[in-house]
Amino acid sequence: MFSRFFPKEVNFFDLFEKQVDCAVKAAKELKEIVCTPGLLQEEAYNKIGAMEHEGDDIAHTIMDQLNKTFITPFDREGIHALTKKIDDITDMVNTIVSRLRVYKIQGGDKYFIEFASMIETSVFHVASAVKGLRDTKNAKAILTSCIEINRLERQGDIMRDKVFVELFENAKDPIQVIKWKEIYEDAETLLDICEDVAHVVESILVKHL
Amino acid sequence: MFSRFFPKEVNFFDLFEKQVDCAVKAAKELKEIVCTPGLLQEEAYNKIGAMEHEGDDIAHTIMDQLNKTFITPFDREGIHALTKKIDDITDMVNTIVSRLRVYKIQGGDKYFIEFASMIETSVFHVASAVKGLRDTKNAKAILTSCIEINRLERQGDIMRDKVFVELFENAKDPIQVIKWKEIYEDAETLLDICEDVAHVVESILVKHL
Amino acid sequence: MFSRFFPKEVNFFDLFEKQVDCAVKAAKELKEIVCTPGLLQEEAYNKIGAMEHEGDDIAHTIMDQLNKTFITPFDREGIHALTKKIDDITDMVNTIVSRLRVYKIQGGDKYFIEFASMIETSVFHVASAVKGLRDTKNAKAILTSCIEINRLERQGDIMRDKVFVELFENAKDPIQVIKWKEIYEDAETLLDICEDVAHVVESILVKHL
Repeated sequence: MFSRFFPKEVNFFDLFEKQVDCAVKAAKELKEIVCTPGLLQEEAYNKIGAMEHEGDDIAHTIMDQLNKTFITPFDREGIHALTKKIDDITDMVNTIVSRLRVYKIQGGDKYFIEFASMIETSVFHVASAVKGLRDTKNAKAILTSCIEINRLERQGDIMRDKVFVELFENAKDPIQVIKWKEIYEDAETLLDICEDVAHVVESILVKHL
Repeated sequence: MFSRFFPKEVNFFDLFEKQVDCAVKAAKELKEIVCTPGLLQEEAYNKIGAMEHEGDDIAHTIMDQLNKTFITPFDREGIHALTKKIDDITDMVNTIVSRLRVYKIQGGDKYFIEFASMIETSVFHVASAVKGLRDTKNAKAILTSCIEINRLERQGDIMRDKVFVELFENAKDPIQVIKWKEIYEDAETLLDICEDVAHVVESILVKHL
Repeated sequence: MFSRFFPKEVNFFDLFEKQVDCAVKAAKELKEIVCTPGLLQEEAYNKIGAMEHEGDDIAHTIMDQLNKTFITPFDREGIHALTKKIDDITDMVNTIVSRLRVYKIQGGDKYFIEFASMIETSVFHVASAVKGLRDTKNAKAILTSCIEINRLERQGDIMRDKVFVELFENAKDPIQVIKWKEIYEDAETLLDICEDVAHVVESILVKHL
């Protein structure tokens, strides 16, 4: 009888899962593009673009629901920050794929393939950490994922330095240096963004333990 | 009689209006510089510098008043974040103009002129959104401005990609590529900063609806 | 008797002092490397790396203690933000030294030596501001340090512009332009990060005056 006064409860955790699954899909697609020379045609590019839009739509839904909901599973600022940062992951995957396209680069060298794998793993752990927030019982598992995300971020730094030494020592064409330098930096930034999500997750956890 | 115990009420909205109007002025000046080859002499550069200082002064006044005021129109963190982000807009306009000067670039090509128009429009909507915060009745109009700011940010991404394809395909002088690549990236970053302000405005709105 | 129920009180201020002292040590080491051509061998590089790890460990201790402590000297979000930003300083020093190493650059020119001095001074003021947080009586001294940090950030902007004019006018080797452009930008970003810490300190102060 009172049902219309009690709107169906919004489950923010369901929305976060959807959003983070979208980031996982994008990271998987990035890896496939990097491993498959010739794959980066309009189709693959549009696929990533569609994922980015899907991620945006979920982010907007979360913000809309936040406007309409009185009781939230954790503080409103935390929800806002988490949505924003997960969105940044999908955005950054899209940025990297856009650059590969703009710079007309097909497939990756062995280092870039390794980077794409690290990104896939890190985003996988981001998804685990975010999904874990449903229950503070998961605190330990969440922190384990966060530690792994931090480790991958550091490994990314080392990889990028190694690639740069080779890139600059063998540099013949400055235009090629400009292109690849940026792509490797973006890849490393993506691992930084995953670390940012881990920081937001940790700060949410801190307030609810 | 008690007047000296009750200092004149600080109107934070007035201060925010002043600060955001300063960003609007800077964006207008940027467009004029870009549209007028030969305009970027010391005078135009100093004018933008003066706007940046004016913006900084208002930001400092806001922070000072925040220190001295007990009751604020919305939470202290929100005021802090909003001031900081609006300041970032004027700073970034100043950065772009500094680069044009440092790189000795006079006027813009057709793409850069288009970018400067998009920046002007986006900053205009930022001003509308910020000014709208005076009254939560304006929520719908504020959100409309925020959506427009988001749209321009996306359009900026597309523009930059298009420009980059041309820049890299026709690249002869790597030094020119370095210069223009950076200037277009800054222009796109300015649209990102406008989007950041929109996010802060939305998060303030969220807490006060 | 009840002592095991009352764990030794964590002193967050002691931890912050340790963390910020680590940033000061790193900034001093950077200056020494820049002033001493030939110093950047594996030893100096490993020393900075060790400082960065030490800083990370303290940051993790702070976050751990935050998880376990009920009463904190200022709000949990403030502690989180401050730890993160101080960590960014030591990280950025490490980044600059990594680049010098990756780009096989030994020692600095006169401008880079000046930059390293400004960085050392700014980080020194960051340490003063952070240490001052022990007592709101220090508000004035803290704000004086924050103002000095802001001043150095602006001076850094001017320096970088001056260096860039020379770099681009005399540019013969685009690869050298790419390397030095990035190193000077990082140096300027380090001064920006110091300013970010100052902003966090100010926002903590604002809530506790």
